[in-house]
Amino acid sequence: MTEYRTVRVALLGAGSVGSQVARLLLAHGDELAARSGARLELVGIAVRDIDAGRDVELPRELLTTDAESLVVGADIVIELIGGIEPARSLILQAIHAGADVVTGNKALLAAHGSELFDATEQVGAEIYYEAAVAAAIPIIRPLRDSLAGDNVQRILAIVNGSTNFILDRMDRFGDSMEDAQKTAFELGFLEADPTLDVDGYDAAQKATILASLAFHSTVPADGVYREGIADITPAQIDAARTAGYVIKLLAIAERITAADGTEGISARVYPALVAREHPLAAVHGGNNAVFVEAEAAGPLMFYGAGAGGVQTASAVLGDLVSAARRHIAGGPGLGESTHADLPLLPIGDVITKYQITLRVNDLQGVLAEVATTFANGGVSVETVEQTIDPEEGGTAFLVIGTHAAREHALQATVAALKASDVVNSVVSVLRVEGV
Amino acid sequence: MTEYRTVRVALLGAGSVGSQVARLLLAHGDELAARSGARLELVGIAVRDIDAGRDVELPRELLTTDAESLVVGADIVIELIGGIEPARSLILQAIHAGADVVTGNKALLAAHGSELFDATEQVGAEIYYEAAVAAAIPIIRPLRDSLAGDNVQRILAIVNGSTNFILDRMDRFGDSMEDAQKTAFELGFLEADPTLDVDGYDAAQKATILASLAFHSTVPADGVYREGIADITPAQIDAARTAGYVIKLLAIAERITAADGTEGISARVYPALVAREHPLAAVHGGNNAVFVEAEAAGPLMFYGAGAGGVQTASAVLGDLVSAARRHIAGGPGLGESTHADLPLLPIGDVITKYQITLRVNDLQGVLAEVATTFANGGVSVETVEQTIDPEEGGTAFLVIGTHAAREHALQATVAALKASDVVNSVVSVLRVEGV
Repeated sequence: MTEYRTVRVALLGAGSVGSQVARLLLAHGDELAARSGARLELVGIAVRDIDAGRDVELPRELLTTDAESLVVGADIVIELIGGIEPARSLILQAIHAGADVVTGNKALLAAHGSELFDATEQVGAEIYYEAAVAAAIPIIRPLRDSLAGDNVQRILAIVNGSTNFILDRMDRFGDSMEDAQKTAFELGFLEADPTLDVDGYDAAQKATILASLAFHSTVPADGVYREGIADITPAQIDAARTAGYVIKLLAIAERITAADGTEGISARVYPALVAREHPLAAVHGGNNAVFVEAEAAGPLMFYGAGAGGVQTASAVLGDLVSAARRHIAGGPGLGESTHADLPLLPIGDVITKYQITLRVNDLQGVLAEVATTFANGGVSVETVEQTIDPEEGGTAFLVIGTHAAREHALQATVAALKASDVVNSVVSVLRVEGV
Repeated sequence: MTEYRTVRVALLGAGSVGSQVARLLLAHGDELAARSGARLELVGIAVRDIDAGRDVELPRELLTTDAESLVVGADIVIELIGGIEPARSLILQAIHAGADVVTGNKALLAAHGSELFDATEQVGAEIYYEAAVAAAIPIIRPLRDSLAGDNVQRILAIVNGSTNFILDRMDRFGDSMEDAQKTAFELGFLEADPTLDVDGYDAAQKATILASLAFHSTVPADGVYREGIADITPAQIDAARTAGYVIKLLAIAERITAADGTEGISARVYPALVAREHPLAAVHGGNNAVFVEAEAAGPLMFYGAGAGGVQTASAVLGDLVSAARRHIAGGPGLGESTHADLPLLPIGDVITKYQITLRVNDLQGVLAEVATTFANGGVSVETVEQTIDPEEGGTAFLVIGTHAAREHALQATVAALKASDVVNSVVSVLRVEGV
């Protein structure tokens, strides 16, 4: 029988992910030892309340409320508490004590990633965070290692299962936004406070992490442009379907060149029109997918479950094995490479196609006037479709598809349309992605 | 400016992949240095003919016909010659000289993987082979690292772009097998000798590699069950469509339990029926996709281009950066873990569903007799559909869908059907996968 060196593992948090990590770690000890070259000894599990009810029964003698003491002496610390504090302090404490860290804490990485990565660099430690984006789907390691010899150009990602579930219900079952949210809540896809998901904050945190990693730069979380899905209407969903699109909340990280020639990064989150034939359009329910376009590799997609305790535990345990291998054999602890140091550019610099729906009076000359407004704004029109409003005589809808245009030109054009006498209202402005 | 240590890289082969690797390595030297921590010095490119025409112009002073001398003194050897010899000898020579190896040579890994991995283990070297399966799609690293804490149960993979292109043409454009192969050849998807692709040899090599890696065992290439697509007919494609399926050539690696209780691996390649809603059904043209089912992670899919010089070069360069990082910082050189040591089980032990099409005389009592044959064979019938043959009066087609059954029971049943008086012929036997 092989003698393995022991690696001491401290687990912080025993929620839906943490309890599954503990269960699998205790159940598959021999197998994990064979794969990592180390006996992974779970030295303790820090919880807020030892007597709290849990889905998984955990050995009582491992539970402690003293997270700080648990971190001391651990070789690897798994942080699954979530939120900023005390997670941040405990991770810094672990790093300074020489431990490697495994975390799924997207909020912390988005807000304080630089601080944590700088700390690891000082001591030669490493942070593993596959579980922070798209649960079990391997995306951090592919970006960091598999595509290390390539240049990522763009990432379009469905990284929030709740909003994908809601939009998918509206698209496939004709639900209203309210009903879709209600169903999502009942099935556990949505928290009691849906803000984090519905308003795109969760997706924006993941966009920050993906953009930083893909472009070897520090992307400040508060600079990520963000629109949620709260205002998406069944009418927009139907119109998208008619035009061959589906509406998806996308987290986007893209290398772009600003109008003034500056090379930089766009990181943004919004509901966008995606062509039905695009691989992302086939991502249903609570699933996640990350679509990566790289210079040499071309388009790649990574698909799977976007949430779930046991699914996310798979990613945590994969990181744990990597950390244990490194603990035994040594190896690269490069920290997070930010050598490219590209600036985050504002949304105005982004170039996409748009689909704009206007409500207009059905009068002669309206189309010419609208077309002139687009031309004056420097936005080139590709398609126009006019439909009479069946409910109100004398008015019509104009659906205008544009060629690729810069966001600031588009916004100025939309402002001009709103001020125009011939336009009753701007019903919908949606960006088209994946083209 | 950062001072980087120099890592000496020898490239063997300058075909469609090798020439792109050389081009990108020379063009992106600074960027690759920043990412790997090493200056990657291309010390030479071994070719058969220095004056051969190439898509990419390579510095003539780097070209040599003396591969053996080039290997001496290299830190990392990239082998892109393909085939067994001299690739095998050169790689062994490189390993014994202490170099790490990057290769895309699936034929060699399938046939001699154990020998190569044993050699690396002796000297603490490492073989990287992301490019050997599914070109640029990251699948080796996700299986080896990301899923290291999980248990893979099954892999269903479209890993041969040529056959996927052919079957996709037949399905979407109604091509005959002959026409589809002709188009595939004209567009460069098929070699002059199509045997390797069409008869499933290429997919079987990849199944060997995936099964070995996923199940931590040594899978002998010559034990992989293999059927090609040459006999697939437009009638089968149409019948599949009618029944809600698409026919895909799948490379399958699965953990199974034999009839006698033995735990083991099935590795097999055949054209199978895949439900239209399955993510693999949406993989069109020459693309590849690897669908992985793991115990904790659930279903995952990795999708992208399955071939192409520059796409495959992306995978090679990713491996090169990993190898260079390890060369600088040290680190895990675990070789290939085969600790699970599971046996490869024969096709007879596999359990799947089947769809069997029989041509029968349209007489009373035929269905009862056929049903009895299935029952005697221990194969449970799930669905039966009877259609009158429009071209020949008095005969009908019976399409029988079975419940999950073991292959040896199915084969015995098919033999009994062939011998039956009421069955004119067994028109088609296809397995159903992804359920």
